[in-house]
Amino acid sequence: MKMATTTVPVPELPVQVLRPEALNSIDQFWRASCYIAAAMIYLQDNALLHEPLQPEHIKERLLGHWGSSPGLAFIYTHLNRVITEQSLDTLLVTGPGHGAPGILAPMFLEGSYGRVVSDCPTTPKGLLELFRRFSFPGGIGSHCTPEMPGSIHEGGELGYSLSHAVGAAFDNPNLLVACVIGDGEAETGPLAASWQGSRFLHPTRDGFVLPILHLNGYKISTPTLLARLPKEELRALMFGNGWDAIFVEGSEPLDMHQQMAAALDECVRRHRDIRAAASHGPIHHASLPMIVLRSPKGWTGPAELDGHRIEGSWRSHQVPISNPRTNPVHLEALEKWLRSYRPEELFDTAGNIHERYFRLVPPVSRRIALSKHANGGLLRQPLNSSKLENFAIEVGQPGTSLAGNTTPFGEYLAATLANNPHTFRFFSPDETLSNRLGAVFTSGKRMWLESQLASDLDAGELSVDGRVMELLSEHTLEGWLEGYLLTGRHGVFATYEAFANVVTSMINQHCKWLEASTEIPWRADVSSLNLLITSTVWRQDHNGFTHQDPGLVDVIANKSPAVTRVLFPPDANTLLVCMEECLDSTNRVNLVVVDKQMHLQYTSLNEARMLVEKGLDVWSWASNDHDRMPDVVMACCGDVATKETLAATALLRAAVSDIAVRVVNVIDLFGLATYRERPTAVSNFEFASLFTED
Amino acid sequence: MKMATTTVPVPELPVQVLRPEALNSIDQFWRASCYIAAAMIYLQDNALLHEPLQPEHIKERLLGHWGSSPGLAFIYTHLNRVITEQSLDTLLVTGPGHGAPGILAPMFLEGSYGRVVSDCPTTPKGLLELFRRFSFPGGIGSHCTPEMPGSIHEGGELGYSLSHAVGAAFDNPNLLVACVIGDGEAETGPLAASWQGSRFLHPTRDGFVLPILHLNGYKISTPTLLARLPKEELRALMFGNGWDAIFVEGSEPLDMHQQMAAALDECVRRHRDIRAAASHGPIHHASLPMIVLRSPKGWTGPAELDGHRIEGSWRSHQVPISNPRTNPVHLEALEKWLRSYRPEELFDTAGNIHERYFRLVPPVSRRIALSKHANGGLLRQPLNSSKLENFAIEVGQPGTSLAGNTTPFGEYLAATLANNPHTFRFFSPDETLSNRLGAVFTSGKRMWLESQLASDLDAGELSVDGRVMELLSEHTLEGWLEGYLLTGRHGVFATYEAFANVVTSMINQHCKWLEASTEIPWRADVSSLNLLITSTVWRQDHNGFTHQDPGLVDVIANKSPAVTRVLFPPDANTLLVCMEECLDSTNRVNLVVVDKQMHLQYTSLNEARMLVEKGLDVWSWASNDHDRMPDVVMACCGDVATKETLAATALLRAAVSDIAVRVVNVIDLFGLATYRERPTAVSNFEFASLFTED
Repeated sequence: MKMATTTVPVPELPVQVLRPEALNSIDQFWRASCYIAAAMIYLQDNALLHEPLQPEHIKERLLGHWGSSPGLAFIYTHLNRVITEQSLDTLLVTGPGHGAPGILAPMFLEGSYGRVVSDCPTTPKGLLELFRRFSFPGGIGSHCTPEMPGSIHEGGELGYSLSHAVGAAFDNPNLLVACVIGDGEAETGPLAASWQGSRFLHPTRDGFVLPILHLNGYKISTPTLLARLPKEELRALMFGNGWDAIFVEGSEPLDMHQQMAAALDECVRRHRDIRAAASHGPIHHASLPMIVLRSPKGWTGPAELDGHRIEGSWRSHQVPISNPRTNPVHLEALEKWLRSYRPEELFDTAGNIHERYFRLVPPVSRRIALSKHANGGLLRQPLNSSKLENFAIEVGQPGTSLAGNTTPFGEYLAATLANNPHTFRFFSPDETLSNRLGAVFTSGKRMWLESQLASDLDAGELSVDGRVMELLSEHTLEGWLEGYLLTGRHGVFATYEAFANVVTSMINQHCKWLEASTEIPWRADVSSLNLLITSTVWRQDHNGFTHQDPGLVDVIANKSPAVTRVLFPPDANTLLVCMEECLDSTNRVNLVVVDKQMHLQYTSLNEARMLVEKGLDVWSWASNDHDRMPDVVMACCGDVATKETLAATALLRAAVSDIAVRVVNVIDLFGLATYRERPTAVSNFEFASLFTED
Repeated sequence: MKMATTTVPVPELPVQVLRPEALNSIDQFWRASCYIAAAMIYLQDNALLHEPLQPEHIKERLLGHWGSSPGLAFIYTHLNRVITEQSLDTLLVTGPGHGAPGILAPMFLEGSYGRVVSDCPTTPKGLLELFRRFSFPGGIGSHCTPEMPGSIHEGGELGYSLSHAVGAAFDNPNLLVACVIGDGEAETGPLAASWQGSRFLHPTRDGFVLPILHLNGYKISTPTLLARLPKEELRALMFGNGWDAIFVEGSEPLDMHQQMAAALDECVRRHRDIRAAASHGPIHHASLPMIVLRSPKGWTGPAELDGHRIEGSWRSHQVPISNPRTNPVHLEALEKWLRSYRPEELFDTAGNIHERYFRLVPPVSRRIALSKHANGGLLRQPLNSSKLENFAIEVGQPGTSLAGNTTPFGEYLAATLANNPHTFRFFSPDETLSNRLGAVFTSGKRMWLESQLASDLDAGELSVDGRVMELLSEHTLEGWLEGYLLTGRHGVFATYEAFANVVTSMINQHCKWLEASTEIPWRADVSSLNLLITSTVWRQDHNGFTHQDPGLVDVIANKSPAVTRVLFPPDANTLLVCMEECLDSTNRVNLVVVDKQMHLQYTSLNEARMLVEKGLDVWSWASNDHDRMPDVVMACCGDVATKETLAATALLRAAVSDIAVRVVNVIDLFGLATYRERPTAVSNFEFASLFTED
């Protein structure tokens, strides 16, 4: 057997990037961050260890995750240096979300946290308040929740960090999006697919996504797979995913600082080279720089306790010293560990953070914690929308003409893309044509950086400048869209009804993010997540049972009414009005269900506007109860059900002479909910006026 | 920048493996299969083109997917050769499920389909019947549905082929599991993660999984990403995922036959080498052989039509010639295309398939279509179970003692692993210890083939012979378990309640598979899919909002009652009884929800048995309505709700003197459903006797 070789470029990095003074500053900042990160897990008093540590200084319930915190603080510290030196605008996506202490600590230290959360100023008292709030109900989560400044990414359910980062980078050419990916998260399906996002980042139009794969070796108690791969295999895996990995490996801090600084400088340089080449030559996918950071789990923590190895082992995952309140050996080990960071040096005599820590902290306008991109509502501009009149179809006698329900919306999409060339994208898993939305391609093609063949030309829809994002990964698309919206832009995701279920858990979690965000005063409103659900259950008989599943409605219905809406437009014009309303709305997940096939048309644009505004209403033209109470009320929701209901109404009226039938069409499913349970629910009085008292 | 090289072994394959006679046989079989595959999409009469093709011979509605069918038939044909020559037992997993014609055709041709579906014998009449049934309600789906012989894999929702294949190979050392992965499916998250299954296949204990990544270049209308990767990057991607790719590329059939035969021979040889090395030396992960098959989409189909390229383009995806009934040019093109396969040679003068096609067809016992592994209920043996008495905890006065609800079940799991060393596995995303099921490790460690470090020893739970499957990919675990169950074995998947939602759509689709299977007479009963849901919503406050989501119950509740059960055992002994019942059951998805923390204990083992048998019952000891009708009935479901209900009952009795309170505990959620709606629902009479008439 011969051996073929795959050639991967590996930079020869300088070994001493940092001069002694910068090295010292970085190490000091990092160690202070490690102290704060560790101490917030343990201390409820004696925040700077001015006294000997006593059991009563320790929190009663120890919560938090130490394991990845020192590595995260290390990354944050080094990003600060490169941001400062190279004047970068930066968004940080923290995948190992349970390591919140590792992010909160440097944010506190540099004073950014206190700027957002006023009761945590950079004083000893503010520090203690931070400790008290950490992992406490109503305080700060033990992972990167919406309450975390500078974050668009919830680290609870793993798998979406890189797709969020890529989505955030779209149309943000001057943004560095650093994305820490934990080696636990890297085992998930959604993360595994999202590496290929490298192939959808335009080298000049989009920002610079810098994945930092953090190999700290263990999950809760099992080794992580990627940390144990032979280095050659890991490098090949990244290369096959479109990334050139630069390795930073070890545990000796000063050496690690030099490696990390050199790696970051190299990444920035290479990205500039790629952009420069793209500015002057053909645009195509180039392998993008990334960093693999291999450092011990619980780095700088206690080496051993009770005969067990702690640093560098799975025992560092959560709280490495478990019983300092009751076990004197644990108390002593904790004190020794915490004092190793020299907390007494944190504050100067005036009670402020010592100026030594600020040498490499970026100016306020460039700080990670204060990035406007992480609070995208601050940047969000309303869509430049087109008048629906330009796309609405003529409808004469209701129920007599046929049209494709999605086709006019495809034209509206095209106009929206054209009118918002930097702030709107359309996402679909290769179903744009199938869902009869092909008109969108008149103003935005499919984004495609890989090679093109003669056999593609026929489709005519591929372009390096495309703004329609197609990939057969619902997870990646949903993640891209979430990242795009949370950084202040707009979008629509269209997919088959059955396969929207693939991203049920992502939609769940996005609903929770929105719900939590609305209660955080400093978070500004972001555009709603708009899911256009087509190829619905009724017409998928030929594709079989797997293609029929309307269950996502159940899932949306169990989420907070404040952030969810489910709309069933019965025809083309109501779809236009629904989508306009959804695209204008903020802080919601909107599920709009409509079939892609030809259907009877019922409503003019004006009627559609009134119907959508009300959410549900009587269709007089289909009813014959005009001068009396109805004998029967027929209610319908959605295109196919509406048609069937109208047919049933006709049968009924033919079968029973003089029967009075009223037809009610429901567009807003939650309009039917009990009054006050949902914001759009009709009142009991309105309900009775539509459906009668009995 | 220096260039590092990643070394990937590439075999030098012989170029002429097939002698002329074998080459001819293979090509004939394949071409006949292509004819049948194409014709089943189009013809409702004139099945062998004995007459000139007329519009009335064409089906009125053309359904089916031609695109990947010829490639699938090519793979099937070549597998037949290697199965025959090397006497292999083989299971085929067909990921590009919409290419069902490419699998049905060779199965019909070799006579296997007719053995399973008696009205499709290998006669011209049987052939026409196959055509009529294809993609017709009540007939055969246009993708690999449960009705497909030889299949454990539904090709509707993409992403799970390789995890199904790996699960099927576990503990089947003599089985070749060939797995065709479409390049569309390869873009999905679940598939992307599942490549790492290479690292969980034991070289001697498990079977030989052979992925065949089929690059046919296009999805519905967009190029596929992996087909456009530079070959070096694709090879690196596979290598990083643990596989050595052998490429078979081209379009010229005779050359492709030689390449494919050489590649298959090489894969079998290399797998034997890996196994031989493992039999005599240390066991570790070795890169496993796989095939990348690059062939044109719609291979051998019409080259062009209406000025558009068809073969090798996305226009081959579904029905490449769209209007042969009404467009004479299309009719002529269709006839020319179909006649290119020489259908008149299919049958001999006696009306049987000509013997020329049988030269490389395996004996009946080895045919893919007839594999017992694909109808796993035929191989399934009941579990060797242990008496619950060995694990039950003593419960004195109800509600007075505390125990961990999951701990005794962990011991039961250990015994089950020990008693069923080849037919039971336990699956969890690194949550076995967290969910307090660590006792399982006393008889089965975590399966781990990569390197081990001193810092792992402390956990003491890694072994190449392990039978606990941990990976932080719910998708991969769920897919492994489905593959394991559908091939006749048993298992349990334990995971956090919130993150069970990650696999909502997979559970959905498995429910549908089971529901459809129960209506297929030849499908034997398979073990139920048992989901143990722990770390439930009530106790995840410290982990935050993301870790709280009980929504999977909604999803299970919208699936067929015949194949679903949701159980809420309130304590440790009821959990044991529930799990025993679930592990004994067949053809269901069982969701068992129980919290991992310490809880009050209420029921002895005997009481637990009665309670689980009934599904819901009055708890007399907690009620005081013994001699009269209750004033209040308090119903509870699940451990935490039960405790809260009992506390509320106590408060109520303290607050209202002489109040008669009845407590009803519900274990089987669907026991409460309307009678006849669910198989375990109580009757109206029983309901009234529990809850009173009013």
